[in-house]
This record gives sequence, structure tokens and C-alpha cells, in this order.
Amino acid sequence: MSENFMYDGGTVSVIGLGHMGTRLAQAFLAGGVSTTVWNRTAAKADALAARGAKRATTVAEAVSSASVVVVCLPEYDTVRALLEPVGPDLAGRVLVNLTSGTPESARLMSRWAADHGAGYLDGAAMSGTRLVGGPDALFVFSGAAEAFAGHRTTLVSLGNAVHLGDDPGLAAVYDTALFGLAWGALAGFYHALSLVGVEDVDPAAFAEVAAGHMPYVTSLMTDHARQVQQDRYPADDGTVQVHAAAMQHLVDASLAGGLRTDVPELMRSLLERAEAAGHGADGMAAVARTIRYGAQRVRD
Amino acid sequence: MSENFMYDGGTVSVIGLGHMGTRLAQAFLAGGVSTTVWNRTAAKADALAARGAKRATTVAEAVSSASVVVVCLPEYDTVRALLEPVGPDLAGRVLVNLTSGTPESARLMSRWAADHGAGYLDGAAMSGTRLVGGPDALFVFSGAAEAFAGHRTTLVSLGNAVHLGDDPGLAAVYDTALFGLAWGALAGFYHALSLVGVEDVDPAAFAEVAAGHMPYVTSLMTDHARQVQQDRYPADDGTVQVHAAAMQHLVDASLAGGLRTDVPELMRSLLERAEAAGHGADGMAAVARTIRYGAQRVRD
Repeated sequence: MSENFMYDGGTVSVIGLGHMGTRLAQAFLAGGVSTTVWNRTAAKADALAARGAKRATTVAEAVSSASVVVVCLPEYDTVRALLEPVGPDLAGRVLVNLTSGTPESARLMSRWAADHGAGYLDGAAMSGTRLVGGPDALFVFSGAAEAFAGHRTTLVSLGNAVHLGDDPGLAAVYDTALFGLAWGALAGFYHALSLVGVEDVDPAAFAEVAAGHMPYVTSLMTDHARQVQQDRYPADDGTVQVHAAAMQHLVDASLAGGLRTDVPELMRSLLERAEAAGHGADGMAAVARTIRYGAQRVRD
Repeated sequence: MSENFMYDGGTVSVIGLGHMGTRLAQAFLAGGVSTTVWNRTAAKADALAARGAKRATTVAEAVSSASVVVVCLPEYDTVRALLEPVGPDLAGRVLVNLTSGTPESARLMSRWAADHGAGYLDGAAMSGTRLVGGPDALFVFSGAAEAFAGHRTTLVSLGNAVHLGDDPGLAAVYDTALFGLAWGALAGFYHALSLVGVEDVDPAAFAEVAAGHMPYVTSLMTDHARQVQQDRYPADDGTVQVHAAAMQHLVDASLAGGLRTDVPELMRSLLERAEAAGHGADGMAAVARTIRYGAQRVRD
């Protein structure tokens, strides 16, 4: 087995030119990376070829053309079907799989790659397609640290490339978790926007103030993660009880405005559950504990 | 009626020295503002006096000592009880009320102040007490723009002082809405933290990646506010249907990890409601529409 995959060859192949795959190839080209592309419908490669991408006529040719083989397809089954016949060609290369899947499917694919002498990185694009290639596009990768380190200069063409750890399943875990985080923030935002809408506040004006508020909210996340780590919940940012009362006020104001109240009601129920678990006088982050362990496990 | 309150006199009185009131007085002093303080329990002023604050022995003396009278008390009823006897002393000054209350109570107090020839700004401290005095401490104010403009140089000692509009009720509206926004983000974060916790991911390591992801999430808020403004929901960031399927995956992963699933289930129900209202092929921000108007109002 070759150890070549530890080192950056500066060449990449992109297999799968859907919306995301095309953006990935564009970003590699813009980053000065020698880029080969393959897609089942070859016409999808036309615009990329015009920008300097090499076309591969087969998957095997794509795999053989580069030190880094990036796969971005709608489903894992398609990845396996395409790559199974070309397994031996992957020896000494790094397979970077940006297809969405479960942690377990990533771990299985990592073992399959290892069986063929290939390195493996599982990845997830966290910032949609528009930002790809810019510094704010978050890409998380997991798998052997050496494979990431060896090809970091190639992968940073995509954006903010972060290595999460050696377990290839981590990218899928983070993908799902960050999706939930984003949706929590957006659900809160949509509700907030609806509430100020009742008072005829301009949505863009509210969004500007909200955007200015988010760095503070983000700083709470960092603080509260430390509290969860230590399983200690000081009430510096208000107690569960105080937040529950304020949440009742949000429910009441939402009702008065004729809004659906399910978003603040969920938050109130999270706080009530934390209170029932004996965290009434603790800080708000005690809510995290009851999501993980439920109300039945009262703190010592 | 004097128009003096339009201009910054550079002097402030702080009435109410609870945790927040004390931080406000400290920030004014640090900002070089001549500061008088009053509290029912006078001992609470000791530390501030040692830092250069003047003590007022009565509320009337506090009011008479400054061009800006800042009130921060636990309840509106207490504000009214304290200020009613000294109404005439407020003439020509600006009353800045940072006591939490409803938009209507702020509007009533604004009229009361106007009846006594005083300007009025309602305010809300959005970033807890720790950041007060620093540039990241968001303070929102509402009431006459002239009153805010005239005392802006004093109020920026508190932090990022933002004027929302002439309606004195706006600060309370934003206060409630931003509280809901923060809780949405935190509920999503707590759930995400629990999910990665199942895979033994270090909470602090996850928080660091999450913090790097939040600017993107915030940029979605800005984009989606514009969509709500225009009542048009392009699917650039994925359709409601695609997000609903991904949310089901989050519910499943949460169940598999033994977590409480109420956070992702709420989000799934928001998406399902949007789908039922005919927004399946629209962008995710269509969810905002159904919070405001419910599922029964299908888009034209």
C-alpha cells in the first residue's frame, strides 16, 4: 500500500456535477487546482471544460487523473455503484466523499477505501452552494488527519475547510447537528419576524438589528458548551425560572398578535422540563441536559 | 415646555441599582459621564460612589441632578410609584426607561412623560449584564428620534445603542422578539450539542465549529427577511420538502441517540404545515408565513 495519499499532489477529480459538484469544481479551478471532471450526463461538464477543467470519459479515467478524488452525488448507493468497479484505481489516492449520509455509511466507505489502499475523508458542505470558494463557506471533513493535512492546500480552495477528527463518521454527525442548530435559529427568527410584523416593523430593519444580536447569542453557545462539558449550570444569564416566565410573556404576546405559538410553546416546555428536573434556579443551559437525558434524571 | 431635552447635557441619573442598574451606572462612569445614583437601599450605591458617582438621597434629587434620568427597576408598577410624585421635576429632561414591560405600558409612560414636559425613551438591554459598557452590548431604544439623537453620546457609553423608531413601544416589541430569536438558536444549539454528545464529541470543540457556522445562518436571516418582505420564497437554500426530509433524518438520528426529540419534531411540524399550505416547492422561509398567518391561508 502506497503512502502517496499523505501528500498533496495538487490535482483533483470531481465526480458528480450536480449543483454542488459544479460549484466544487469551479472553486478548485478558481483556486488554481488542476481539475478533472466526470458526470453521467457529459454535457454538464461543458461550462467547466470552457473554464479549464479536463473531461474524463469514464469514472476510471477520472479516478486515475488525480491525487484527490472528490465525489458529490445525491445518494450513497450511487457512490458505491460508481466506485466499486474502480476500487483498485483508488490505491494511493484520497477519496473525499461529500455525499450526504449517515455516520455509519461514512465509516463503511472509509473501510472500503482502506481495503483498496486509499485514504478517505468524509465531508459536508455546511453553507449551501452560493458561498463555495469563499472564506465563509464552511466545509467539515473527518477521517485520517494525515489525509486531511496532506491535501489541505487543495481543500481550502472550497472555503473554510475544518478537520473534525479521525472518525470518518464525524462529518455526518456535525452535518446533522449543525442543520438542527441552523433550523433552531431560523425558527426563532421566523417567529420573531412574525411578532414584529404584527407591529408593522419592516422585516429588513428587524433583520439588521437581529444580525447585530447574533454574535452575542453565539457567545452564549460557547459559554454554555463549557457548562455542559462541566455539567454545571451557573445562572449568569438568568435562571431557568426567570426564562420560563419571560417565555410565557412571549407566548402571550404571540397569542395577542394572532400568531401560531408553537415555537415559543416548545421553548416554554423545554424550560418547564428543566424546572421539573430540579434546575429551576440553575442557568438556562440546564435545558441541554434534559434534552440529552430527559426529565427523569435529576441532577445530583 | 422646554426643548432642553433635545440636547445632550452630559449628565445622567440612574434610579434603581439592581444588577443591571449597577452595570449601567458603572458604564456611564467609565464613559466619563457625570453620574448620580439613587437606590431604595442606599448601601447599594457605596461601590459606585467610591468610583465617582454622586449619591442622591431622594428620587426628586436624582431627577433634578441630570439631563438624562435612567430608570431600571424590576417592575413598571414600581417605576410609576417612584416617579409619579416627581413628575414636575422631569420637565425638560429625558426619561430613559430600561424596565421590562409591554409595548402598551411603554406608550402610556411616554404620554405621561410628555404630559410633564419630559422626553421619553423606552429601552431594552439585549445582551445580559456582562457586556454592558462594551461595543457588543446591544441596547435598543424607542421614542422620539430627537430625544435619542440629543443624548446619543451619553447612551453609547452603555454599548451599541440603536434607535428603533419613534413609537415608544418598539423597544419592548424587539425585546420580546429578540428573546425568542435567541432561544430558538439556543434550543437548536442545545439539541445539536446533545446529538454530538452521543458520539462523544467534545462540547467545546463542537461549539467552536458552530460559532464559525453562525455568520452563515445569520446571513440566511437577512436574506429570508427580504423574502418575507416581498412575500416571495425562492428555493435557493433548498425547498420546504427537502428540508422536511432532512429534518426527519434529524428526528431519526436523535431517537437513535436516545435524545428527546421535541426540538426537531417542532421544526418538522413547521415544515409540514408550510407544505400543507402549498409551500412544498418554495424556499424554507415560507415557514415564516405560516407562523404569521397559519396553514389556512394558502398563498395566491
